[in-house]
Amino acid sequence: MIVAEYSQIRYEVADRVLTLTLDRPDRLNAFTGRMGEELRDAFDRADADDDVRAVVVTGAGRGFCAGADLGGGGSTFDYSQANADNAHRDSGGRLTLRIFESTKPVIGAINGPAVGVGATMTLPMDVRLASADARFGFVFTRRGIVPEAASSWFLPRVVGISRAMEWVSTGRVFDAEEALRGGLVRSVHPADELLEAAYALAAEIADNTAPVSVALARQMMWRMLGADHPIEAHRVDSRAMAERGLSADAAEGIEAFLQKRPASFPDRVSADVPAFYPWWPERPFTPLPERPAGAGD
Amino acid sequence: MIVAEYSQIRYEVADRVLTLTLDRPDRLNAFTGRMGEELRDAFDRADADDDVRAVVVTGAGRGFCAGADLGGGGSTFDYSQANADNAHRDSGGRLTLRIFESTKPVIGAINGPAVGVGATMTLPMDVRLASADARFGFVFTRRGIVPEAASSWFLPRVVGISRAMEWVSTGRVFDAEEALRGGLVRSVHPADELLEAAYALAAEIADNTAPVSVALARQMMWRMLGADHPIEAHRVDSRAMAERGLSADAAEGIEAFLQKRPASFPDRVSADVPAFYPWWPERPFTPLPERPAGAGD
Amino acid sequence: MIVAEYSQIRYEVADRVLTLTLDRPDRLNAFTGRMGEELRDAFDRADADDDVRAVVVTGAGRGFCAGADLGGGGSTFDYSQANADNAHRDSGGRLTLRIFESTKPVIGAINGPAVGVGATMTLPMDVRLASADARFGFVFTRRGIVPEAASSWFLPRVVGISRAMEWVSTGRVFDAEEALRGGLVRSVHPADELLEAAYALAAEIADNTAPVSVALARQMMWRMLGADHPIEAHRVDSRAMAERGLSADAAEGIEAFLQKRPASFPDRVSADVPAFYPWWPERPFTPLPERPAGAGD
Repeated sequence: MIVAEYSQIRYEVADRVLTLTLDRPDRLNAFTGRMGEELRDAFDRADADDDVRAVVVTGAGRGFCAGADLGGGGSTFDYSQANADNAHRDSGGRLTLRIFESTKPVIGAINGPAVGVGATMTLPMDVRLASADARFGFVFTRRGIVPEAASSWFLPRVVGISRAMEWVSTGRVFDAEEALRGGLVRSVHPADELLEAAYALAAEIADNTAPVSVALARQMMWRMLGADHPIEAHRVDSRAMAERGLSADAAEGIEAFLQKRPASFPDRVSADVPAFYPWWPERPFTPLPERPAGAGD
Repeated sequence: MIVAEYSQIRYEVADRVLTLTLDRPDRLNAFTGRMGEELRDAFDRADADDDVRAVVVTGAGRGFCAGADLGGGGSTFDYSQANADNAHRDSGGRLTLRIFESTKPVIGAINGPAVGVGATMTLPMDVRLASADARFGFVFTRRGIVPEAASSWFLPRVVGISRAMEWVSTGRVFDAEEALRGGLVRSVHPADELLEAAYALAAEIADNTAPVSVALARQMMWRMLGADHPIEAHRVDSRAMAERGLSADAAEGIEAFLQKRPASFPDRVSADVPAFYPWWPERPFTPLPERPAGAGD
Repeated sequence: MIVAEYSQIRYEVADRVLTLTLDRPDRLNAFTGRMGEELRDAFDRADADDDVRAVVVTGAGRGFCAGADLGGGGSTFDYSQANADNAHRDSGGRLTLRIFESTKPVIGAINGPAVGVGATMTLPMDVRLASADARFGFVFTRRGIVPEAASSWFLPRVVGISRAMEWVSTGRVFDAEEALRGGLVRSVHPADELLEAAYALAAEIADNTAPVSVALARQMMWRMLGADHPIEAHRVDSRAMAERGLSADAAEGIEAFLQKRPASFPDRVSADVPAFYPWWPERPFTPLPERPAGAGD
């Protein structure tokens, strides 16, 4: 098992699966700027590590993540000193954009309360599993703030606009069954079987698939959510098929299938991603103006 | 109770909830141009009235809205005289775009038949509840016309493209259970419990959340349905968090939470929405040309 | 019954419904470039034939489509000789883009294994029905290639990004019940009742609706999936209502409704589609560069 040194999360690789554990159990793993930085760094490491085929994110102790640490009281969300230039970037969004860019599939194993940023950080994960003890809350409107972490983009795409608006406009805290009915989680498990189910899914990926194919597929699927016409997907997958069709992986994948044996894929994400990747233009952050010129609708 | 004077709808505010009642019960509340104007005016009033925290839309008598009033017979949809300049704007779409822009959550309480524009007008509402007696029909293809009220944008986003295409291509009239299975309504209620359920949801919003936060959240969620990349949400919510984090509402929201007491939010939609709102450029209506130059696909 | 001559599919029109049968039963109807060309040609014919009101796609024998024919072994996806100019266009995508553009509703009747392109070719169909024997697999990552046929655009829109990522990142083959739970198919039928159910749905369209209205509605719904704001739908449906409101179909549709009799719509897709159609600009295929200039994210 490989363990990296972080102070608010744990990073453990075993059986080609990285487990990221939010690790402030005495605070129900409440989110801090430091935790966000460590998580972003961990996703960088995971992308660079060919021994990581999938990522499982869970929480230490009885919580998943209770949201922003409110230890600062009423001024918790006062960023004016830290961002004198009015270019504040929400730390939850920096994390969800990083997860969005992951080349490894990300599985949320939500073992307890996931509230505020604890809920929104899970939205760019590919699959969410919950323990029967999990609780969810997009509670921002109850705290006088707004849904953050780019959740206004992710949440309606994951659960539909109606469910998103019900949860966001009420700020309600709800249980795992409501999350399941609403499509926020894929399955609900007894608490002591949650990680087992997450690892079974991760193993299904690690045992059967070509890492470069999964990396390309993940970015194709998430990126095409923003494309205005299917021909954009056709442009990318035509190019990707041309490149991957020539790869050692494709030859092995087909031969193994025809021979009814497990495939052993040689290509690595660190070295063998085709040259056309990434195919998208950079989208740098630019702050929204304080007062739009002539805006209105 | 506050009541405004309209002729085809009723406007009643009680307990911080506006009830808009389509009120032509002898015609199953069939839609007219006048009804559309009154509804748009009512949403303007609702946005301007800080005592309105949520809007419930329902129908008088045994219907919700039977669709366009076909009292004009075969020439009902002949707009050529009214629009000699070929710049016809569909009245259903003028209404749904107005609801799209609402800063107050909108709950459809669908008490009976909702057919044609009676169905499509509900799509930009946040949540739809149905009585067991409700019936739905996107019947446009059975009348020789097309789905209107911008429903080609809204319906696939609410129920998915496959369900949308089944309902639109058959023009079928279907019951509340099929609407529930297809995700068009969130829940089905006995007829005499429908309004109670709608008001319970409205009260959950009114009793617990900050109005400015809800207004921002509603526009963020609906607008980001059209954004091509999550960084657009990150730009808006970073700015919104910077502003709202300094607000009296945020201080109150956090303190109330820490003190385990109900919050009392001071900010008002009429006066305290941050200066960056609205952040989107205007999208004026421009008519589609009669014959596109060199169009094709 | 009208039958066109193809070698790898069957084209049969009866009762105003075209049945397209993938017809290589000894190969579980495995997909070839030729089959793709024949299918595209068949959709051209269907669009031009006013006697075709809906299209049912199914497979001969016990399979639907087992995916690309792997008879070529490990070099199956080596397109380098066929496409020396690096302008490879994926044949699955050429087919799905053609189905996307259909003016007739398309119903997939998935009677057995639908794997690889056999699964992705069904995504631009409007409704998918499965027999209890059907199996599905987005197996690309198990073969060392990538999801093709523009499925990175279609699949997340049909089943949601989370389900799409689970199926694509595992490459799992799954049964009809999992497809139903995940929203990939609309209903599951005993094998000997599948076609009957598909034809019942096709008849519901053919018996009740105006063909020009259905053609416009189909393109409006699918195209607006890519629109960034509902006002784009308002522009199109305002124009469409202005034109169709004057049509003989609209007069007949309303009169028939008021007289409680079946409508008999005179307008034909081949001749009576309004002049503003198609309203979208052409989107020609342009190949993705081998190495984007300065790309990154």
